[in-house]
Amino acid sequence: MLYTTVDMLGVIAFAISGVLVAMEKRLDLFGVGIIAMVTAIGGGTIRDLLVGEVPVDWMRHAYIVYVILLTTVLAVLFQNRLKNLRKSLFLFDTIGIGLYTLVGIEKGLAAGLSPVICIALGTITACFGGVLRDILCNEIPVIFRREIYASACIAGGILFFVLLAGGIDPGYCNIAGILTVILIRLLAVRFHIGMPNIYRDRGPAG
Amino acid sequence: MLYTTVDMLGVIAFAISGVLVAMEKRLDLFGVGIIAMVTAIGGGTIRDLLVGEVPVDWMRHAYIVYVILLTTVLAVLFQNRLKNLRKSLFLFDTIGIGLYTLVGIEKGLAAGLSPVICIALGTITACFGGVLRDILCNEIPVIFRREIYASACIAGGILFFVLLAGGIDPGYCNIAGILTVILIRLLAVRFHIGMPNIYRDRGPAG
Amino acid sequence: MLYTTVDMLGVIAFAISGVLVAMEKRLDLFGVGIIAMVTAIGGGTIRDLLVGEVPVDWMRHAYIVYVILLTTVLAVLFQNRLKNLRKSLFLFDTIGIGLYTLVGIEKGLAAGLSPVICIALGTITACFGGVLRDILCNEIPVIFRREIYASACIAGGILFFVLLAGGIDPGYCNIAGILTVILIRLLAVRFHIGMPNIYRDRGPAG
Repeated sequence: MLYTTVDMLGVIAFAISGVLVAMEKRLDLFGVGIIAMVTAIGGGTIRDLLVGEVPVDWMRHAYIVYVILLTTVLAVLFQNRLKNLRKSLFLFDTIGIGLYTLVGIEKGLAAGLSPVICIALGTITACFGGVLRDILCNEIPVIFRREIYASACIAGGILFFVLLAGGIDPGYCNIAGILTVILIRLLAVRFHIGMPNIYRDRGPAG
Repeated sequence: MLYTTVDMLGVIAFAISGVLVAMEKRLDLFGVGIIAMVTAIGGGTIRDLLVGEVPVDWMRHAYIVYVILLTTVLAVLFQNRLKNLRKSLFLFDTIGIGLYTLVGIEKGLAAGLSPVICIALGTITACFGGVLRDILCNEIPVIFRREIYASACIAGGILFFVLLAGGIDPGYCNIAGILTVILIRLLAVRFHIGMPNIYRDRGPAG
Repeated sequence: MLYTTVDMLGVIAFAISGVLVAMEKRLDLFGVGIIAMVTAIGGGTIRDLLVGEVPVDWMRHAYIVYVILLTTVLAVLFQNRLKNLRKSLFLFDTIGIGLYTLVGIEKGLAAGLSPVICIALGTITACFGGVLRDILCNEIPVIFRREIYASACIAGGILFFVLLAGGIDPGYCNIAGILTVILIRLLAVRFHIGMPNIYRDRGPAG
């Protein structure tokens, strides 16, 4: 129950991030709704397709679609007040990627996949909704541009497997993984830490 | 038989719309063919992947691929005359989205999915070929930009389920749904009705 | 064993082509790694999803992911020397599309699909990693722009089925198909042969 409530905060935060990007591109109401939907459930959809869990998650849990549609309508109605919510939204989004990463990892384990593949699945779950959002809005995905976002998911995933290999109870590994993702993301944004520059000539574009 | 013939008109109209967009981008013959293919069968492919009906539809019915390839070659050969066909093409396309929407809904019902998910599947079947076309051509999907297109599919889908809940014979619900999609789309284009403006500051970009 | 070694050369060449495009867009290390991954395994992933072979190939063979990650790190570290390798990379890439085309065709045959669909699967396996790479980097896919690339795959696939229909041993058909793809691609690049111009008014843009 608590889990589902917290999970829904992540869905709402992802949906609103989709609404914001879509409205910047001045899409119509349908377009805004689709982008909200894709941002919130796109990562989990790709994950389910890759492991073969079909019909994919949101098709079996229609209430997620209702939550996203309601969020979209409210976000469009109160568009002028959204900027006052930026801090809460950032927090929800961060909690969301923490949860999504570990949900993806658990699905990978249930499918009998190896740790590195599970971590990839977790990262896809957490980050590829945003990637699809940016592709549909004709932008290079923002997570490919120096932000500590996917890297936080990967770090949390690695910690999960390190603890698991150390004989720690899976439930604790799970919580530790989620908190690690959240903590790294919060610290990176708080202290303006980005990915290292890999270019020899000059700084990156982003 | 009648159904298949009408269905093929939809496939042909979608394929030609792909050819037109691809030729505007001046792609080569292979690129034009791929865009035609993706436009005509992309929506159904995404639908089949989401519900887990694999190999996807066009792989089990190769004649669809032949129809699209032939359409592409003819459209390229007679490219100068295509503009004279715009009215017929628009009509075929409109019939196509009506049929595709209800095909998607039926597949959703067969998979035991709830009405809102079935309507989503129908809309994906009808509209996401065009979405993939625009993404491959590096454009923001045109259906996200104020046209009554996906909304017509959603309205037809809702009517289908309202009638079904009212105890009407499924066959009649089906026909009523298809005709509703077609009628709304025709009326919207005829009377220049678009999606409502959702922006407080100024009008949308599109 | 030889097969796997040669196959890995293709994976490495595809991954490096992803690194090069991603670095041109000045993505961060994570973005470069994802683009490398998508370029190398995207085509096979789409193929596996379409025929329903899940979890998809790379999830069952994690060593491919390690090879790509190592390739990415080395390519970034030695970025200044990559241009000296262009000829080898082109050769590896060409061998790669030859192998991938026939792998895709074999998977299609194993799934009981008809020849034209098998050839489509082979071409998707060989070419759609590059298509995904270009979409993620916000470019119209380069293979849609006059190069003999996908056409070489299609030609090799057709030859495979012609020989097979002629009663030739499948193993020989396979090798003949691979060599045909490689040969056509090499000759096209060597003699600057592109796809024919299909535009009546002026030349294509690309």
